[in-house]
Amino acid sequence: MKLLRVGTAGAERPALLDAAGTLRDLSGVVADIDGALLADDAALARVRAAADAGDLPVLAADGLRIGPPVARIGKVVCIGLNYHDHAAETGAEPPAEPVVFLKAADTVVGPNDTVLVPRGSAKTDWEVELAVVIGRTARYLDSAEQALAHVAGYAVAHDVSEREFQIERGGTWDKGKNCETFNPLGPWLVTADEVPDPQALSLRLWVNGELKQDGTTARQIFPVAEVVRYVSRFMTLYPGDVINTGTPAGVALGRPEPKPYLRAGDVVELEVEGLGRQRQELKQA
Amino acid sequence: MKLLRVGTAGAERPALLDAAGTLRDLSGVVADIDGALLADDAALARVRAAADAGDLPVLAADGLRIGPPVARIGKVVCIGLNYHDHAAETGAEPPAEPVVFLKAADTVVGPNDTVLVPRGSAKTDWEVELAVVIGRTARYLDSAEQALAHVAGYAVAHDVSEREFQIERGGTWDKGKNCETFNPLGPWLVTADEVPDPQALSLRLWVNGELKQDGTTARQIFPVAEVVRYVSRFMTLYPGDVINTGTPAGVALGRPEPKPYLRAGDVVELEVEGLGRQRQELKQA
Repeated sequence: MKLLRVGTAGAERPALLDAAGTLRDLSGVVADIDGALLADDAALARVRAAADAGDLPVLAADGLRIGPPVARIGKVVCIGLNYHDHAAETGAEPPAEPVVFLKAADTVVGPNDTVLVPRGSAKTDWEVELAVVIGRTARYLDSAEQALAHVAGYAVAHDVSEREFQIERGGTWDKGKNCETFNPLGPWLVTADEVPDPQALSLRLWVNGELKQDGTTARQIFPVAEVVRYVSRFMTLYPGDVINTGTPAGVALGRPEPKPYLRAGDVVELEVEGLGRQRQELKQA
Repeated sequence: MKLLRVGTAGAERPALLDAAGTLRDLSGVVADIDGALLADDAALARVRAAADAGDLPVLAADGLRIGPPVARIGKVVCIGLNYHDHAAETGAEPPAEPVVFLKAADTVVGPNDTVLVPRGSAKTDWEVELAVVIGRTARYLDSAEQALAHVAGYAVAHDVSEREFQIERGGTWDKGKNCETFNPLGPWLVTADEVPDPQALSLRLWVNGELKQDGTTARQIFPVAEVVRYVSRFMTLYPGDVINTGTPAGVALGRPEPKPYLRAGDVVELEVEGLGRQRQELKQA
């Protein structure tokens, strides 16, 4: 299933994109799409039955804003340098174990919402990523099989990053990762049953129509299952938590000077195979 | 005012510790203590009027668990190496600007709840800290005066840290800061009007009755007002967000080998002047 949330920010209603590509209202079936729903097999079964019955109310998609596909996200865990080609372009050795950092859930916006270039920023950069949405509490997992059983589904994430704040201002990467609007998510959450192999998805990102990133999750250093297993040994993952699993090569940071960082007016589009497409216009904060 | 939340985890009720030290039930006045309340002057005025009237129902404190003083915390922003003596003991230069990292809000527990030593941990460490609770949305603040006007109050925080995960496992500090139960908070939120000078508070921490940390916020490299102003330029702070403003000298990491890291069975007690006292027993995760 493709689950999404549509409407004005903070007042989204749950919806479903059916197999024919028709947007359907889910608000008569569930209150919202959040961790509680994703952990509730009975509620998910009700959604699936309603989708299969084909009689959910149709929503007019025209002009309707799409919000983040999950409400009340607890935390966004990010994996750094998780693609061989991206590690190489930044001059870093492939890490021996996953590099972990955090984004606050309040950085998450809808897939087509405005992204703000922070005040004082000269190095705002793009990163297309495969996001994993957790469906069951994951704590000290032992195996990759166990790990995948804790995944509710997948989505497109844009892990917007300010490289000066991240790298040149002292301390950890978090300083350049948590600016407001820095984590567009969606358009939909695709349930895990519809993503048989998360390690075989292409990822692409364009800036002003020019292809900048063109990668595949086949080149992840640590695959999704290992990422979930590994992270669960350092922190407990709860339903509705999100993991951004890293970006492939092609970011501005990895290019020759003058690096083509984002400015107000730029348009970024990104997609992950089977998970939909985002489009953001950049504005000045 | 001293605002707190009492009861079993996840089902706490709002309460107030009055000037005589009597615990009073606030659940007839406000639904909970959270960011929405802290941003609502009228609701806070109702709480203050009820406290002044002296007729709030008395709660029997005996055996009553104290939860975190704020519900639905959005994020916990932490400042690293923010005391001259602590930076020195870790061998670090005093930072030129604040070191920022994040803890997920799900690490927050009550002030006397059990703290779990993570599986595989040999270097679980203590850190007593002054926590700042945000009361108004803070975004690109310009001045220290502005910054303090965005603070709802203060609390004791225990920024529990796993040093191997934090420093020796690659990536950012977050890996050693986000284990479950790693952020006891409370017992109370003391409203800012009762803390005239946050730079004049003593902080102390004991392990098994032995004094380990004995510092003062006067030795903070970046005072509270500067921390709030600085952080607001990199991320938006929302009502109910928490900032842990750093720890003074005396942590296990700063001691000669063999460093006295925490183990199951240890008891940590900590206090910040005027903000109350915490006590945690360590258990194995």
